[in-house]
Order: sequence, then structure tokens, then C-alpha cells
Amino acid sequence: MKSELFPEIPVIPFEGPQSRNPCAFKHYDPDELVGGKPMKDHLRFSMAFWHTMNAGGTDPFGAPTAIRPWDGETDPMRIAELKMRGLFELTGKLNIPYFCFHDTDIAPAGATLRESHRNLDHITGLIKQLQQDSPLQLLWGTANLFTHPRYMHGAATSPDTRVYAYAAGQVRKAIEVTKELNGENYVFWGGREGYETLLNTDMKRELDNLARFMHMAVDYAREIGFTGQFLFEPKPKEPTKHQYDTDSATVHAFLQAYDLLPHVKLNIETNHATLAGHTIQHELQYARIHGILGSVDANQGDTLLGWDTDQFPTDLYTTTLMMYEILKNGGLHRGGLNFDAKVRRPSNTIRDVVVSHIVGMDSFARGLKAAHAMLQDRALEGFIDTRYASWDEPLGREIQSGTTTLQSLEQQIIDLPQFLPDSGQQEYLESLINGYL
Amino acid sequence: MKSELFPEIPVIPFEGPQSRNPCAFKHYDPDELVGGKPMKDHLRFSMAFWHTMNAGGTDPFGAPTAIRPWDGETDPMRIAELKMRGLFELTGKLNIPYFCFHDTDIAPAGATLRESHRNLDHITGLIKQLQQDSPLQLLWGTANLFTHPRYMHGAATSPDTRVYAYAAGQVRKAIEVTKELNGENYVFWGGREGYETLLNTDMKRELDNLARFMHMAVDYAREIGFTGQFLFEPKPKEPTKHQYDTDSATVHAFLQAYDLLPHVKLNIETNHATLAGHTIQHELQYARIHGILGSVDANQGDTLLGWDTDQFPTDLYTTTLMMYEILKNGGLHRGGLNFDAKVRRPSNTIRDVVVSHIVGMDSFARGLKAAHAMLQDRALEGFIDTRYASWDEPLGREIQSGTTTLQSLEQQIIDLPQFLPDSGQQEYLESLINGYL
Amino acid sequence: MKSELFPEIPVIPFEGPQSRNPCAFKHYDPDELVGGKPMKDHLRFSMAFWHTMNAGGTDPFGAPTAIRPWDGETDPMRIAELKMRGLFELTGKLNIPYFCFHDTDIAPAGATLRESHRNLDHITGLIKQLQQDSPLQLLWGTANLFTHPRYMHGAATSPDTRVYAYAAGQVRKAIEVTKELNGENYVFWGGREGYETLLNTDMKRELDNLARFMHMAVDYAREIGFTGQFLFEPKPKEPTKHQYDTDSATVHAFLQAYDLLPHVKLNIETNHATLAGHTIQHELQYARIHGILGSVDANQGDTLLGWDTDQFPTDLYTTTLMMYEILKNGGLHRGGLNFDAKVRRPSNTIRDVVVSHIVGMDSFARGLKAAHAMLQDRALEGFIDTRYASWDEPLGREIQSGTTTLQSLEQQIIDLPQFLPDSGQQEYLESLINGYL
Amino acid sequence: MKSELFPEIPVIPFEGPQSRNPCAFKHYDPDELVGGKPMKDHLRFSMAFWHTMNAGGTDPFGAPTAIRPWDGETDPMRIAELKMRGLFELTGKLNIPYFCFHDTDIAPAGATLRESHRNLDHITGLIKQLQQDSPLQLLWGTANLFTHPRYMHGAATSPDTRVYAYAAGQVRKAIEVTKELNGENYVFWGGREGYETLLNTDMKRELDNLARFMHMAVDYAREIGFTGQFLFEPKPKEPTKHQYDTDSATVHAFLQAYDLLPHVKLNIETNHATLAGHTIQHELQYARIHGILGSVDANQGDTLLGWDTDQFPTDLYTTTLMMYEILKNGGLHRGGLNFDAKVRRPSNTIRDVVVSHIVGMDSFARGLKAAHAMLQDRALEGFIDTRYASWDEPLGREIQSGTTTLQSLEQQIIDLPQFLPDSGQQEYLESLINGYL
Repeated sequence: MKSELFPEIPVIPFEGPQSRNPCAFKHYDPDELVGGKPMKDHLRFSMAFWHTMNAGGTDPFGAPTAIRPWDGETDPMRIAELKMRGLFELTGKLNIPYFCFHDTDIAPAGATLRESHRNLDHITGLIKQLQQDSPLQLLWGTANLFTHPRYMHGAATSPDTRVYAYAAGQVRKAIEVTKELNGENYVFWGGREGYETLLNTDMKRELDNLARFMHMAVDYAREIGFTGQFLFEPKPKEPTKHQYDTDSATVHAFLQAYDLLPHVKLNIETNHATLAGHTIQHELQYARIHGILGSVDANQGDTLLGWDTDQFPTDLYTTTLMMYEILKNGGLHRGGLNFDAKVRRPSNTIRDVVVSHIVGMDSFARGLKAAHAMLQDRALEGFIDTRYASWDEPLGREIQSGTTTLQSLEQQIIDLPQFLPDSGQQEYLESLINGYL
Repeated sequence: MKSELFPEIPVIPFEGPQSRNPCAFKHYDPDELVGGKPMKDHLRFSMAFWHTMNAGGTDPFGAPTAIRPWDGETDPMRIAELKMRGLFELTGKLNIPYFCFHDTDIAPAGATLRESHRNLDHITGLIKQLQQDSPLQLLWGTANLFTHPRYMHGAATSPDTRVYAYAAGQVRKAIEVTKELNGENYVFWGGREGYETLLNTDMKRELDNLARFMHMAVDYAREIGFTGQFLFEPKPKEPTKHQYDTDSATVHAFLQAYDLLPHVKLNIETNHATLAGHTIQHELQYARIHGILGSVDANQGDTLLGWDTDQFPTDLYTTTLMMYEILKNGGLHRGGLNFDAKVRRPSNTIRDVVVSHIVGMDSFARGLKAAHAMLQDRALEGFIDTRYASWDEPLGREIQSGTTTLQSLEQQIIDLPQFLPDSGQQEYLESLINGYL
Repeated sequence: MKSELFPEIPVIPFEGPQSRNPCAFKHYDPDELVGGKPMKDHLRFSMAFWHTMNAGGTDPFGAPTAIRPWDGETDPMRIAELKMRGLFELTGKLNIPYFCFHDTDIAPAGATLRESHRNLDHITGLIKQLQQDSPLQLLWGTANLFTHPRYMHGAATSPDTRVYAYAAGQVRKAIEVTKELNGENYVFWGGREGYETLLNTDMKRELDNLARFMHMAVDYAREIGFTGQFLFEPKPKEPTKHQYDTDSATVHAFLQAYDLLPHVKLNIETNHATLAGHTIQHELQYARIHGILGSVDANQGDTLLGWDTDQFPTDLYTTTLMMYEILKNGGLHRGGLNFDAKVRRPSNTIRDVVVSHIVGMDSFARGLKAAHAMLQDRALEGFIDTRYASWDEPLGREIQSGTTTLQSLEQQIIDLPQFLPDSGQQEYLESLINGYL
Repeated sequence: MKSELFPEIPVIPFEGPQSRNPCAFKHYDPDELVGGKPMKDHLRFSMAFWHTMNAGGTDPFGAPTAIRPWDGETDPMRIAELKMRGLFELTGKLNIPYFCFHDTDIAPAGATLRESHRNLDHITGLIKQLQQDSPLQLLWGTANLFTHPRYMHGAATSPDTRVYAYAAGQVRKAIEVTKELNGENYVFWGGREGYETLLNTDMKRELDNLARFMHMAVDYAREIGFTGQFLFEPKPKEPTKHQYDTDSATVHAFLQAYDLLPHVKLNIETNHATLAGHTIQHELQYARIHGILGSVDANQGDTLLGWDTDQFPTDLYTTTLMMYEILKNGGLHRGGLNFDAKVRRPSNTIRDVVVSHIVGMDSFARGLKAAHAMLQDRALEGFIDTRYASWDEPLGREIQSGTTTLQSLEQQIIDLPQFLPDSGQQEYLESLINGYL
């Protein structure tokens, strides 16, 4: 099958900031060097199979709106094949180097797990075949442990051992497939690992079981020689009332408590950060300074709404401060910027999907350039150095070296008349960011 | 000074549920046995000095409304003495066995820290004198490291070492005084330990400094023989945009990362839980199962408002589920139920203060009885045992003992036809709680 | 077809508060008199067809979980018939006197509107036939103008006149059917009448069109002699980012601005109130004092979540204060308490559906009794009378009669020394409510 | 007194976008023409006396931090005079043409209202004297009816007629002074006009009294010949749990219900919009299309926080879309952009205050230019015209002219096969905005 699925979509050109063509990049030029490295290596964009190929525009009150070339097809395997070809076509036209998937996104579920595995193997073969003519690589794979009703109480935290075993089988296979496709990471997202009500829940038992599950995954990876990075993705709520992987700090607590810190980093999503009441910069910085920043799900939410809208990232403040943290992290290494984003329900054409990816990539390209310029100018760093300067003076160094006591410190100031630290100058710093947009 | 400060307030009698007297207990009978232990030992109520004696009903848009007997007094030390006498009088009339304070609540600050210490010593002497005629004990002491402008960027996380040293001096003295008064706990609440904006903040440096500070406090306590419990109090925001002690899990991550887990437990507040997007039951259970439930700040918020309203606890669902967790914890041990609650601004008389404490105590007494009855009936426990029964069967035991692998589990279900776990019956369980109110 | 669809469900007995049988009423005894009127006349319960018969437990991340007797059936009309028989069976066993529906809930959509009408007529005939053996009545009918993709930009606010005309056709037919079934009300809920983004929206044009649409509906009703009450249902957001019928006050503004106030009242939903940042008591009271309280969608949300959870009402504070407002309104008149509530996704059996309705009905029965007792005791009224007493004195009466001016009032107090109004005693009043639970 | 109060602050120059001087305008050049009108006439900036001169950086947990030249002064009237001179000095250096105040901001309260009036007259005299050497004009005046404890239950909605009369006296005087100073508007903000709890509240009585109060103000203005515009300012909550002036639509409902629409427009604040769950663009557009957009309080909130942070406006998306609505309104006419904004607590120097105003003015200047360019290009308008084009075709015109019925519309589509409206293209439109930043 050579024919295009989306003949209306051209290979997307770079036309520069003056262009008014909605189907052209204005800021993202993959080979342009920023700080000596091509933009594409900084950004490592990825397309999310589930949103781009599967999402139909449903919401809790609405039926699908999307118009897609496989509408009308009925054979699940043929639809799966068409979608995978569609993915390769779109990523090619958009110059997106990576993709991500859940097992059930790409291959139809069977009547038994064995049958599902067989379907997955078939599509895996197709991917490998398509990769022969395409540079597309796998950023990460994962298993969907939240859609099927068997997971209604959780998967690795289910009260039912059969469900736990089923999840184990799905994850084993998903890791195997991820390895086979040279995936760089394997992600856990626990959409049902939490509770609807504490009234029927034994949280301790569930957390213990979850940790055991992840250790088994780590062991299995070692056994088969999968050397990709494991990632845990924080989200506080939705679909369940409470999810155990609430935010970066909560996952950090879990990884420490269950001795998983050596094995697992974080996959951080913008809209999940805001649902948890944090800025994405906070979540990225928290992970960065604790050495657990793994990868990023790039989208944005609407902070006036209380659910996961998974919008395409267009806010330049957000992309700038995200890239700022990522540059300070020395890049995302094995991770990438995965567009875990879906078009709005009324943006129902494939052209909307393409334009949305362009908008997202352009927004991150602008963010990258602004962040890089800020870092080169040491715009914030210079200010911060001055602000904390007393910590590089003798008293500060002494405290940091652990040689002071409450008593010794008290003696430093016990007779000191009143004093104030310097202004924090937040408003000036905000205008400074505006200067880089 | 023998004369009463609040002659209008009687010793509060117990009149039972039928009473319509607002100044009588209807449910809280301190010596009534619940599960073989007097209610007062279950509940260990505490009065918060700052709200009860100092709060005047201000809000960001309003001047004080409270009418108090020391209105018109001008000498700070005389006011401090009157308030302390007032505390002893009110706790006596209300039969409240504990109190809590910050250093600056009870004694006026001086021009230097040395002078502040002197004032604190004076009031400490007064407390010891008043204790000779009163059963009132100290639940916990703490230092106020958030009100003074020197702490505008934080105390143990200040960018200015002088501020850090000043905080060290305040905490040293507050621990000393807490020990002298046989306080059962010492609390850290980091209202300014966080940031207004990440643009001027080095989070890593601040967290390192905070941890070092707490280690110094632990060392000092050991040195002087203070054997009380250290407690860290989570709150996500307010006054600062972000506080490092966001919620129980975040503090748990911090304590683990900086080797403070052996030394510090949590002081959990209801309204702080809801500001963090959690139920109080969640926060208590999280702390309980991780062995770090120390004490409770008993109040309630308004979940339709986004700030810390610190209302007196009146919601019986909340008090029931709190006491349920506390009973499952085997009680609060050295901790207690501290009314970190203030009367509404228009509840401006001392009678409102008294009635509010009665309402709070009665609400917890009802909660205690309901929770105890639920536990005796194994109302939830029985349901939960059945729900997780498969974990006590061979496969479940095997998983828990760590002898399974992803592969071995997969083999259990790989050919299993579709199946569903049992209903979670949330609605039934909610009605079951209603049956105990 | 005589056979039962739900043989496992008995006719639900009244067993009184001591009963531990989950499938029995403990508080709702339909013929018990409260204030001289049977409870059933106060409460006028209604079952929502969409949740009870159609909802399968899906959520944005999950497939259906519900187990229903028509699983496996494939003929849409046969499924529709089975569900309608199921509705009559369940309402009969639960002693629920009313039901509500959207056109597309009860009959399958056709390829054209004409075909949809034909299907609707068929089911309408079935309803009339089933009513011969059943006391079940129609509380209200409505048209679903939000699920189909044609309505993705709104119905009566669509930028496309074809969509507007289609909506007109659906509403015309739905009013006709509602009349034919002697429905007591007709409801508008504008789930898509709003916008996803203002960037593509002409709000003025959309509001004008919406108002014109409602006037046409009013005209049509008059023309065919439908004398039921028109109701508009407020909700601030979800599915769309912003909905024009935000809350009671917003709808009140709209009805006034477009001269619809004489024709339309409100259908107020608990979870919609909380999503708008209001208590349900506020919304009911606002509508009551403006004479536009029409009917109630009885459910509850989770105020720590930001979406419409539509939970069954179990919170006794809420049901008590709702019934308090309803009693002060002299009842709901033509309106009723419609359970616009769905079982939690993991509550997937029909038994959960039944138990949830029992819980909801019992919770409202307790609320009714508590509210009635409070009103009989004038518990709040007495307090309020005293609080506003000065308005019944000469100055207050003068102000209210409109004979004062700013100047005349100023003269009353210009030389008055400082004074304070009396305490609001909120905490006491909260404990007073606890006394009635 | 000729000497400067803020000698460290220069007259702020315009240095253009390349400037790195924090104390220079980069975008705001007051006389630069945009669309044929100088920027200053578009923007009509105003300084808020309360934040700039009075706010000290307090918060619910913190004492003042601000360093001001009148620190140490004790005579209230001298402080008031110094602050007023400071206002004239700062507005002069910043080239801000307007200011706003509450009565109690600018003059100390007396022991009686008569004494307060006298103090206010004194300062009014000073203002008139200072205006002889300054172009500073009064944008609006108002009375503070929320800080004093007498207003703890409301002012025009107080249950106590003495409080109502006191408020009447304050408002009368404030209108008189506003007139005397040629103020262009008079504002009502009802921070306490609402309730803490419905349990003690008669909402109907309070709304009636509030409306009567506003009618008296309108009558008084007519009587004394005050021709300025009356403005009502929406805010949903804070300080009270619920405020009657929740949002634009709620105020719109109130003005209609009480026949105040001919007399009163709205003063809309950005952070109040977000607290109500709306974007500021929504609030402005709602007011614009209903003909009640009066003036703007220009600030911004933090949508991850639940209180009124009153930050200086720096978000360029916000300022662009605000100016877009304002330009579509034909400008603000008698209204203006009042910086109801305060520096962050740790931004404690007067330099921070100045820099913050520069940042705010520059942000609005950029917003103005971007919005003007968008309108000139008909960037959004063109899209919207196409989107609603069917409404300008025969069927659309017929509907709008009121000649259609539900039946006639139904006939248009009853046999139409399925169809979909066009995509809403939200993502493209968002990128289009980015193109103008």
C-alpha cells in the first residue's frame, strides 16, 4: 500500500516567522543550531498514537466528531494497519522523529490475552517494516491498564489477583515489544491506581502491591536485556478520584519508600502538573534537582477547568520556562517532548491535527530560543547568584558544611538590631521574561 | 490577680443531647468510656493560643472586630500576661487539657533576639506558676518564622544567612522552652519555606538548607535531653505561592531524601489537606500507613473557597472519618487534637469563642462514638476483607511473598476468558456511614 | 412480555431506621405524613432515564462496566423497548412516581430527523401502553442537543443555520411528545450553548439566537396547548469551556434581558451549583426569592474534583438544606426531585443502581424531616428575625418604604460614637443544624 | 513642601524595546499614535491610592514589609498629606494621568462621621492645591464600606439599620468629594455585601436594601449635579464567602431586576474574573455586548491560587485580549485602566512599586499594539464572518427577523441526511495570536 492516506496534507515546509501559511513552520527549523546543537536534538518531538490516530473527539457528553480516512472500515486489524500507516505518513510530513503508544492503541484486543499478544505481534511486524523506509523511532511504549472494565478498581492495585496477573501479562508483553522496537523508555501511568473512595480501600496493601509490580517489571527488563529507562507519570486525579502518583514529590516519596529510586524516573505532563496545583516549571525543577527528570508529555490545560483537557501547547510562557528547565537539566537525554495532546472536539479534520502539531512545535521552538538566550545572558542566574551571595561567604559555607549548630548560629545574631533581606523583585523578573518573548 | 477575665463564661456543664443550651456540652463527656478508655484520652483536645487569644478577626479587607477584656491596654507585657491568664481560665472552664503556642504568640518580641528571649522567659515563668493551680499541659510549642518581615523570603530557606541564623536562634529557644514546659511535641510549619516565584529561587539550595536546619534542631534536642516528638506540618500554599511542605506525601519524600524519617512525624491539618486537594481522611491514612502520623490540627475549610479559613470543625462526616483513622492508628499517642481554628470575623465575642470550642468538641465526640461503633461492627473492615480476599488465597500470598514474576503471573491468565471484578459498592458504603451518624 | 428484567430485585420494603438490609428503605415511607402531607408529595422523586437505563460506566479513560439484561442484544429498537420496560419495572419496585428523558435516550436516532421522529413515536406508544398498568408519570421531557457531532458548536447557538433548524425540529417534536405524555415540565439544558474559545465566537449573535429559539418554543407550546412549565438548567462548564447558562443569576439575567422571565423557570442541579462555586442552598434560595425555582436535579458532586461527577445524593447536610429551601418555597409545585445521578463506574450491577436510589431517597427523607423540624421550631427563623429586627423599627420601615435619602440617613449617625452590630454566631448555627441530623 | 519624597526615582524615560534599564519604558510611549490616537488616550492609566500609598505588604500570616518615607511618622494627618504628595510625585514621574481612591485611604477616620468628613475635606483641599501644578485627574472615587468592623455583616446589606445609615453618610460624602474633584466615575464594590453563611441571612431583604441604597445614590448624584458614571464592581468571594456582585452576569441580573440598568455600568477586574471562573476577556465581552462596560481594574491573579493576589499585569496574552475587547468597545470612554495591583510582599521598596507600574504599562502598550494590528488585519473578524456566514443568508436572516417557527425550521431539515458544521480551528487561532505577540 503506497498511496497516501492524507493526500490533502503536504510535507510541511519551514517558511519563517513572516509566513501566514497555517501549514508551514514559522519557528521550528529542525537543523538550525541553538547553542551548537540542532533544534531537533533539543526537542526530540514525539507523536502520541492514542490522541492522533485513535481519539475521535468524544467527551462525557459527546459522540465522535473526527473525520478520518478509516471511517467506514469495520475490520479491526485493517483499521489498526491503516492507522499505523497514517502515523508514519503524518510524522514523516511533520518531521517528527518519535512516537509513543499503549499496547491497546495500536492493535485490537483479543478474546484472551494470548490473542491480544498475537495481534500486537502482527502490528509490531508492520512497524518494523515501515521503519525501513522511515526514520521514525519509538520514544516509549506502555500498556493500557485503565480502559478495560477489568481495571475498574486498578490494575497493579486491584483487589482482585486475577486482574493483577492480567496486568502483569500485558506489561510483560509491552516491555518485550518496546525492546523489540528499540524503544528508549517504558512508561507507567496509573490512571486507575488509586481509589474512588477510601471507604472500600486498603491503601497500604495497594501501595505494597504496586511497588512489587514495578520491581517485577524492573527484574523482567534486566532479564531480557531491555536497557531503556523506566518512567512513572504523575497525575493527581481523573479518571479516579485519587491517584497514588499524585505529583512529582508524591512519586518521589513512593520510589524512595519502596527502593525503586535507582530504577525509575518521571514522565511529567504539563496538564497533570496544573491539575495537581503546580506549575509545570515547578514539577520539572523538582524532578531535575532530585535527578529524576526523565521525559515530558507536552500539552497544556485550562487552569479555569478542573479536568485534563490535553490541549496542544501554545502558551509561550510555558514553553519557555519548560525549555529553561530542560536546558538546565542538560537536555532530556533518553526522554523527549511527547505531544500528549488532542485537538479540541470541534477541530475535527486531519488538517486540524496537523496544524496543531505545527503550533505545538513552533511554540516549543520559540520557547527553546528564548530559554537559550536567557541562559546565555545569565538573565535569571545572575540575579539568583547575587540573591544567595551570603551562602558563598564564610558563614554560609560553614552552615552548608554542617559545622554549625543552632547555638552557634544564634550567637551570630542575638544582639543584632532589626534588619531586612533585599527585595525579591518578582515584577522586574516577570518583565525580563517578557523581554525574551 | 484572682479575678476572672471572662465572668460571663461559666464552667461548661455536660447536659446531654437533648440540651438546647449553647453553652453546654451535648456529646462530649470527658470521662465517659468509649472502648474502655475515657473520651478525653481519645481526643486530647488542645486550645491554640494564637487563634483564641490573639486573633482579632482581621482579614485581607478588614480590621479587627473582636471584643476582648484587654482592649485598651497598651503595655505589651501586661497584655501578654492577661492573655495567658485568659487561656488558663478558658481551658479550665472548657475542660481542655492542652494548649499550643508559637514563641511570638505568648511574649512580645524585643528589639533584639536576646530581648525577645527575656520576654519569653518571663511568660514561661508565668505559665509554670499558673500550672500549679491548673491541669493544663503543653501539647506542642513552636517558633513563628513567618510573620516578621525578615522572613519574607523564608526562614530556614532564606537566601540571606543572617535570616537563617536568626531563625536558628528562635527555634533553639522555642525548643528549650518547650522542654522546660514538658511539651510533648515540637512543630515545624513552614509558611514561608517555599517561594513566591521560581524566577528568583534556587529550590535545591533551599531544600538542602531546610534539611540541615532540621537536623540541627534534632541534634540540639538530643543535646539538651528534649524527648518530645518533632512534627512537620504540611500545607501547599498560603501565605506563599508554593510551600515545600505541600502535603503528607511531599513531606514524606523530603524526610526520606534527607534522612529525617527517624526523627520527624507529621502534624496534619484538615484545611491544609483540602487546600492540597485531598480529604483529611486521605492525609491521615497516608501518614498512618507510613508510620508518620504524629498529631492533628483540627479545623475545617470551605471547599468552595481557595484559602485557609480555619473554621471550627462541625462536619460530622469529617470528624467521624478522622476518628476512624485515629482509632486505627491506636490513637494519637503523644499527639492530640489541636483546635487550629478561629471564629468567623463576625463571631466577635468571647462567647462565640467558647461556643465554637464546644461545637468542635461535641463534633469530635460524636465522630469518636460513630467511628468506634463502626469499628466494633467491622462495618467497613468486613467489606474490605471480602473485597481483597483473593490476596489471602495462594496466588495472592505468593505475589506478596515476592516469588512471582511477570511471566509466571501472565501464565495464570493468558487463556482466561473475559472476567470482571466485583462491584465496589460505594453508594452502599456511604449510606452505611449515614447509619452511624 | 410479562417476565421481569430484574428478577434479583424485589419490591423495596420500608423497614425503618434499624434495618441493616441494603435493599430496604430506612427513612422514606411514602405515605408518612410530614407537616400534614405525605412524604411522596413533598419529594416527588423522579428517575432519570439516561443515567439509569443508558449509562454504562464509561469515563474519559474507560469503557463501559455495567452488566445489564440487554447486553448482547443488537437491535436498537428492541434494546429501547427493553430499557423502557426496565424503567417501569424499577420505578415500580422503588415506588418512584416520575421519570425524565431526552428524546435520544429512549428511541434510536434515524438516518434523518423524520426517521428519528418515527422511532420516538413508537416508544411513546409503548410508554402510554405501559402506563396503563403503572402509576409512573412524566416529570419532564427534553431534547438532547449536545451528543451528536452536528451540535459540536452548539445547537440554538450554532454558527450554522442548518444545525439551528435541526435543533428546532428536535425540540418541536420533544415538546409534542412531552405534551402527549402529560409531562409536567419541559427542560432546556445547554451543554453546548457556549463556547470552547472566544477567539472564534460572536457571543452577542449566539445569545440573540438562543433567546429567539426559546421564544419559538414558548410560542409552539401555546399553539399546541402544552401547559407544562418551561425550565432552563444552569451549568457553568463541561462539556464546553464556557456555557451561557452558568448559574441561576446568569440565567436570570438572560431571561430578563430577552423578555423570557414570564415563561421560563429554573431546573437547578446540585453538582452544577458546586461547579459554579456555589452551594446548592444558595442556588435554590436565589431562584426562590426571585420566583423562578422550578425543579431540582438531585445529585451531588465532589468539591475536590472539577467535573460533574453526578453522584447519588448521600450528604445529609445537603439534603436538609435543600429541603429547607424547598419547604420555604411552598414545595416544588410542578417540579420534582429528579435523580440526575449515576452509579460510580465500579458500582456496575443493577443492584448498585437500586441501592443508590434507595440511599438517595432515604437521604432526602431524612433531610425533609430535619428541615421540617427546624422550620417548626423556627430554629433559624427566630434567629434571623432578631438579627434583622431593626428593619422592623421606624427607621428600617422608613428606608424600606423609600422615603429616606443619603442625606437623611447620614443625619441619623453623623455624630454617633463608634458602635458594632451583634455577632453573627455562625458556629452556633452550625451546631444547631447538627442537632437536627 | 517642595522636596521630593522619592529622590531615588527619576522621571521615567522612554528608551524603546532594546533598553535593559528596569526604570525605563520600553513599549509605552504616551504620545505615540495607534490607530490615529495617542496611546495615553487609549489606555487612560490610573494609580490606585490604596495599593500604592497604603499597602504595606501584609498578608494573613505576615506583618508589613514595605519601606516608605513616612515610616516613623505618627501623626495620621501628616502621614495622609505625605502620601498624597507621594502620589502626585509618583504619577508625575510615571506619566500616569489618573488616580482612584476610597475615602478612608486618603484621610484618617475620625471618632465620628462628622470628624471623618472634616479630615476628608482637608485632604480634598490638598488635592486641589496639588492639581494646580500637576495634570493628575481623578478617574473615580469610592467609599470604603468593608474594612471597619461596623461593616462586618455588610454595609448596604447590613442587618443593622444604623450601619446602613452610616454607609449612606459615607457614600454621600464620597460622591460629593468625587464631584468636587471632577471625578469621572463613582464605584461601588461590595466586599461585605454578601454573606458568611446562609444560616443567618435573609438574602431577599438584603438585595432589596442594596438596590434601594443604590437608587438613593443615583438620586443624590442627580440632586447635586454629579454627572460622572456609576460603576458596580463584580467579585464572587473574598472577603466574604459569597458576594452578591459575583460576576458581570450576576450584576447584570441585579441591575435589571431593580431597575438600575439605566444608571449603572460595570468596573471589571481581571483577578475577580478568574476568581469567578471566567477569563477577563469573557467578562469584558459580556459587559460590552450588553452595553455596560464602564471601566477596568487592571491586574492579574494566579489561577493556581484561590485568592485575590492583585498582581501587576504582565501576561501579554491577557493584555492583548483585554485591549482587543476595549478597542471593539470603541475604547473605555469615561473609564480607564486602573492598576488595582500591589507589589508582592517581598518586593518591598518604592523602586519595586515604580518598576511594577512600568511593567504593567509596558504590558498594556504591547497588548494595545497587538490588538490594534489584529483588528486592522481582521485576523479574528474575518474568520468569524466566514464561520457565521449562513446567518447572513436568507434562512439566517429570516430566523433573525423573527418570522420562523419551530415547525417551519423543522421542515428545512427533516429529510436532510447527516451533515457536520465546519471545524472551529481553535489551535490555528491560538497560533495566530502568538503571531501578534
